[in-house]
Amino acid sequence: MPELRKDPVVGRWVIIATERGKRPMDFHPEPVSDDTGFCPFCEGHEDKTPPEILAFRDNHQVANGPGWNVRVVPNKFPALRIEGEMGKAGVGMYDKMNGIGAHEVIIETPDHFKKLDMHTQDSLAKVFQACKNRIIDLNNDKRFKYILVFKNEGRQAGASLSHPHSQLIATPVTPKRVKEELMGAKEFFNYKDRCVFCDIIREELSQGSRIIYENKGFVSFSPFASRFPFEIWVLPKRHSPDFQTIEYEEMLLLADILIVTMRKLAVALNRPQYNLVLHTGPVRWARMGYWVTLDMDYHWHIEIMPKLTQVAGFEWGTGFYINPTVPEEAAKFLREIEA
Amino acid sequence: MPELRKDPVVGRWVIIATERGKRPMDFHPEPVSDDTGFCPFCEGHEDKTPPEILAFRDNHQVANGPGWNVRVVPNKFPALRIEGEMGKAGVGMYDKMNGIGAHEVIIETPDHFKKLDMHTQDSLAKVFQACKNRIIDLNNDKRFKYILVFKNEGRQAGASLSHPHSQLIATPVTPKRVKEELMGAKEFFNYKDRCVFCDIIREELSQGSRIIYENKGFVSFSPFASRFPFEIWVLPKRHSPDFQTIEYEEMLLLADILIVTMRKLAVALNRPQYNLVLHTGPVRWARMGYWVTLDMDYHWHIEIMPKLTQVAGFEWGTGFYINPTVPEEAAKFLREIEA
Repeated sequence: MPELRKDPVVGRWVIIATERGKRPMDFHPEPVSDDTGFCPFCEGHEDKTPPEILAFRDNHQVANGPGWNVRVVPNKFPALRIEGEMGKAGVGMYDKMNGIGAHEVIIETPDHFKKLDMHTQDSLAKVFQACKNRIIDLNNDKRFKYILVFKNEGRQAGASLSHPHSQLIATPVTPKRVKEELMGAKEFFNYKDRCVFCDIIREELSQGSRIIYENKGFVSFSPFASRFPFEIWVLPKRHSPDFQTIEYEEMLLLADILIVTMRKLAVALNRPQYNLVLHTGPVRWARMGYWVTLDMDYHWHIEIMPKLTQVAGFEWGTGFYINPTVPEEAAKFLREIEA
Repeated sequence: MPELRKDPVVGRWVIIATERGKRPMDFHPEPVSDDTGFCPFCEGHEDKTPPEILAFRDNHQVANGPGWNVRVVPNKFPALRIEGEMGKAGVGMYDKMNGIGAHEVIIETPDHFKKLDMHTQDSLAKVFQACKNRIIDLNNDKRFKYILVFKNEGRQAGASLSHPHSQLIATPVTPKRVKEELMGAKEFFNYKDRCVFCDIIREELSQGSRIIYENKGFVSFSPFASRFPFEIWVLPKRHSPDFQTIEYEEMLLLADILIVTMRKLAVALNRPQYNLVLHTGPVRWARMGYWVTLDMDYHWHIEIMPKLTQVAGFEWGTGFYINPTVPEEAAKFLREIEA
């Protein structure tokens, strides 16, 4: 059983993977790509993953066989385990709990080489639908406080398989960075009686200089205080704290803005490696006993961080970012690419 | 002039380097090492850096010539500028200020190949003395709130030159991560009436399982909630919030523990790349008008983060760390290496 341990100074929880423990000899350079080897996520290899949790198939083929568009399976090497009790306990002055949670893989396409920007609106909307369904389902588990959905593209971004996939981790604690964002948004709301993200959308659309692309439902832009060169945020124009309130029409619009934005990024920077993180509200209604839809104090969105620089070394230790690219210049560059 | 911009949600300040702005074409892979090329930090090349701010020489040679042990120079490509006013201003709903600060390079040795663990206690103590002197000097500038001292070893850790050096950045804002640590320590102190780091030292020495090395003045160990495999903290046994209160005898003991600990790490992991960050109290006395030495709510220390995994991808976006190595196993491994 993995273990969750809390830093006694800043209160950050860390997952310690006790079972797949890496010893010094395990830190050898890994192969750069699995493109030439066997891929467990490709169509026809369904028996190489744990049995599917969810899959969309056009023609009612059998589960765990070919014919799917999107497929969700448990992570074969999960960071957290679904079975068990919380086991909260002290260890001397420290705090720990069992590594309870869910760790799933969303295989976005049967096609090994179909990057995010190569999707049609329809096929990408199906990926969002799978995320939505999984989030709604996991929200029923009262042990979970947060559901993280993220995508690592490329080795340097942390991906270990190159077949297009995202990951979902349900955690029994709210990650520190998420908590900070929730608290920051709440403070702003308490002070202004407005959602800070709604304000950001109005500000960006009015200034215009950091906009990358916009459609009826969404806007993509370089944030004013971008931490990384070509960092991108995608915000829905309709206020909602929780991703899973998204409707099908909105999924198509989200697919449109992601496809266009990622295509621009691919052209500008020669398909950079990146991390994409869904920022959505914490698990609330299962614990509160009712569906909270009227929260004004958070606004779900997507953050995309291309891995372009190695200068992000000491940032981990200090939280201090130095960004060598002016956000307005990055946005102008991306805006002007035809995609 | 670089610009400091504040994220409106979480309040994180970011340095936007407006002058050395990187455009898309600038993000090409950089050469892996300068070991075969010309090094501006080597002895005899003193005219290739800006004039020195501080240097230790045994035999009173002239400034900016050879014969030095440690040399501090302004960074030729500073992230922040020393001249100017704060220029705090709003931009629409956002906040910014001028990129005022100091950015210095501490060249630790004239020898291009002398890694940290190859120092003698005497020669490494001189490096600490240089840091101490610079921190005390910069503390007199009322514009500064924090002084960061850190070392990036290796390209992947963010180093652009391989000659052994550390960096010092004085900032007009307290970095977010530092503020969290200060606040966490203060909260603990308010609750327990004890320093959390003093408690950690007692806990670690009593449990023993995470200890790497110990001498009269310092202890090095794997923290209970390590974020990274083989993360190491070095804590002084004498409580003091501020590094610059360190005495010469203590510098020798700090040199001893760093040399031994880094030698163990070098043996265990074949000289890994790493970031080393000095965590010390914020600039206080210049602003308060007197030297505050009685603060119990912080405890300076050093954190070392080897760069072993690429799986730190989404951590930036979420603050959620997955550590594949159990701290107790890392400590045992390092403890048992003869060094």
